[in-house]
Amino acid sequence: MSAQPKPAENILLRHDQDGVATLTLNRPEARNALSRAMLSALQAELDAIKADRGIRAVVIAGAGPGFSGGHDLKEMRANRDRGFYEATLAQCSRMMQSIVRLPQPVIARVHGIATAAGCQLVASCDLAVASTQAQFATSGVNIGLFCSTPMVALSRNVARKHAMEMLLLGEFMDAETAWRFGLVNRVVAPEALDDTVYGMARRIASKSAHVLKIGKEAFYRQLETGLSEAYDYASRVMTANLLAKDGVEGVDAFLDKRKPKWCDE
Amino acid sequence: MSAQPKPAENILLRHDQDGVATLTLNRPEARNALSRAMLSALQAELDAIKADRGIRAVVIAGAGPGFSGGHDLKEMRANRDRGFYEATLAQCSRMMQSIVRLPQPVIARVHGIATAAGCQLVASCDLAVASTQAQFATSGVNIGLFCSTPMVALSRNVARKHAMEMLLLGEFMDAETAWRFGLVNRVVAPEALDDTVYGMARRIASKSAHVLKIGKEAFYRQLETGLSEAYDYASRVMTANLLAKDGVEGVDAFLDKRKPKWCDE
Amino acid sequence: MSAQPKPAENILLRHDQDGVATLTLNRPEARNALSRAMLSALQAELDAIKADRGIRAVVIAGAGPGFSGGHDLKEMRANRDRGFYEATLAQCSRMMQSIVRLPQPVIARVHGIATAAGCQLVASCDLAVASTQAQFATSGVNIGLFCSTPMVALSRNVARKHAMEMLLLGEFMDAETAWRFGLVNRVVAPEALDDTVYGMARRIASKSAHVLKIGKEAFYRQLETGLSEAYDYASRVMTANLLAKDGVEGVDAFLDKRKPKWCDE
Repeated sequence: MSAQPKPAENILLRHDQDGVATLTLNRPEARNALSRAMLSALQAELDAIKADRGIRAVVIAGAGPGFSGGHDLKEMRANRDRGFYEATLAQCSRMMQSIVRLPQPVIARVHGIATAAGCQLVASCDLAVASTQAQFATSGVNIGLFCSTPMVALSRNVARKHAMEMLLLGEFMDAETAWRFGLVNRVVAPEALDDTVYGMARRIASKSAHVLKIGKEAFYRQLETGLSEAYDYASRVMTANLLAKDGVEGVDAFLDKRKPKWCDE
Repeated sequence: MSAQPKPAENILLRHDQDGVATLTLNRPEARNALSRAMLSALQAELDAIKADRGIRAVVIAGAGPGFSGGHDLKEMRANRDRGFYEATLAQCSRMMQSIVRLPQPVIARVHGIATAAGCQLVASCDLAVASTQAQFATSGVNIGLFCSTPMVALSRNVARKHAMEMLLLGEFMDAETAWRFGLVNRVVAPEALDDTVYGMARRIASKSAHVLKIGKEAFYRQLETGLSEAYDYASRVMTANLLAKDGVEGVDAFLDKRKPKWCDE
Repeated sequence: MSAQPKPAENILLRHDQDGVATLTLNRPEARNALSRAMLSALQAELDAIKADRGIRAVVIAGAGPGFSGGHDLKEMRANRDRGFYEATLAQCSRMMQSIVRLPQPVIARVHGIATAAGCQLVASCDLAVASTQAQFATSGVNIGLFCSTPMVALSRNVARKHAMEMLLLGEFMDAETAWRFGLVNRVVAPEALDDTVYGMARRIASKSAHVLKIGKEAFYRQLETGLSEAYDYASRVMTANLLAKDGVEGVDAFLDKRKPKWCDE
């Protein structure tokens, strides 16, 4: 992991507006493949955003006709050895988990095809909005590579038989089916995609960033425990939230019928 | 927990009929808030019902226009200290888990708005029936309080991205959406709500109470284990069920083509 | 388990074609009940198929009007003792888990009624296709036997309130509802059932059997761990897959724009 090339500036675009950071995968000629350089660039931006109090929500998008085709198979073939594969998958798994662990909510803006690790990227985001032109597949099985790492995220989003259908058959499914399965939150016409995505992002950005951070962290953590332990843990989180400045301000504002002013603490 | 006030009789109504106990939250002027007194009253009734062999199913309902607006924020503000919050959340978590652990099945009758811990109450019941006028939200994020304890129940009912949408955006969703997400079992017209709820309750009440008890307990317990352990455990439960009086009677009645007579043992 | 009768050849039919093995439950007069002999016959075939490199996908079907009515209650009543029940349930749980652990994907072909352990059989398969005439129930509760072992599979397929509705009420649900719940992948007209089932099976059979094997195994295993452990494990699986002969061949064929030739290694 030490000799990563410095990410080329243009393979991943970042645009900040109104507290929302948009990360755009920008290798359309390679279907926005998650090459080592792309993964590094994403990791670097996620690490930067994590510490950036000015960013309150994140959108992940893709340039060109597709969202992302997953790993860069040409790069994989050019580096056929265990060490390269292990490092690539470790890097990819770390990046996906960085989305889950990011304090800010992350929305996938899926305008086109998302396959394999590209589908994993959608599944790893907290929310996802798809255009009616989006398509989804975990198609690795067709080229001799079962989508074993993508399925970690996928199988935590959709029902078991739905995940298995995608994984064993490797076929495309349309946005409507992805919505029915629970992989995406909304399906809208292509021309309404930005309004829907940034409408959500702005509404999220209007909340207390501190409250979102503790809530998002607690969400994923309590999912991995039994009911009794989850309640004990969530009760501690809720107590801390009630005592936090924004918890006090929010309750006061609500009871006093005024708009709250968040200090994000 | 020792100095709980004796629950006022009128904030929680109980009505028993045909083996079905209905608990009605009765503070419509406070949107049936789950105050400390309300939580105590619910706990007391659940504890009483647990030991009451005459009760075979439970319905939880709300008086007035809404189902429940969750915690009592005025009470929370009037008692701003860690000890009060910890005790309130411990009491609430215990009550919610008492529903899950109650031997009798519990049905939420959701006729109006259910938010925050009110939504948690719906999610904690075994079954839920909503009127088309019901609405659901985990809206705490809007007032600086992420619905961290409600999400323990919510995230065990609906898919991850659906839960996250509710928690991060804090917006109302209609009964149809709640049905699609799996938070409620049925959506019916307001005038059909009681028929549907009590129809279900009576059909449940016609089963062996002993069989329901061992099955419900086993359901939630096996969910928290891996597949192999779940089968070992469920096989032990099933063997005990086959040897129980009502298991023997049920199989005999079925094979002899007669109606079974349960002794609830 | 030592004194199992040799399975009668005709209670379970096996037909192999184009790499797809079809196992047909063939006791229509007993609603294809999962008697001890039927469980033994299924186990024997699954064990044989497991080691059979000529079989790349499996279909489980039922002869006569129904799919399967679950355990053989007459046999259960004729052998009322703890030892028999324990042995039967151990045998059944082992068979169901053998489907999950089978290297080859398994598709349930559900043309009629599937109840109790028959519904468990559907839930235990990787995929399921139902005719519009199929019906599903975990109806044991009606005869004093809560479907505690069936629910292990059912509750890992569908949302919690959907499972509870089936288990507590014990009522029939139609194929459309089973599809909405995620218990089956497709619902088709009776006359389209075979085309759909065998279309899927043949498409699966066209993949590398080795890749399917490692992917299916990894799928169920990673589901039982937390996110971080799942990624570590799946990354190891994916690395091995990339280095496997069929992984290399698949990527080469894809990049060279030719059809892959699997050696199933």
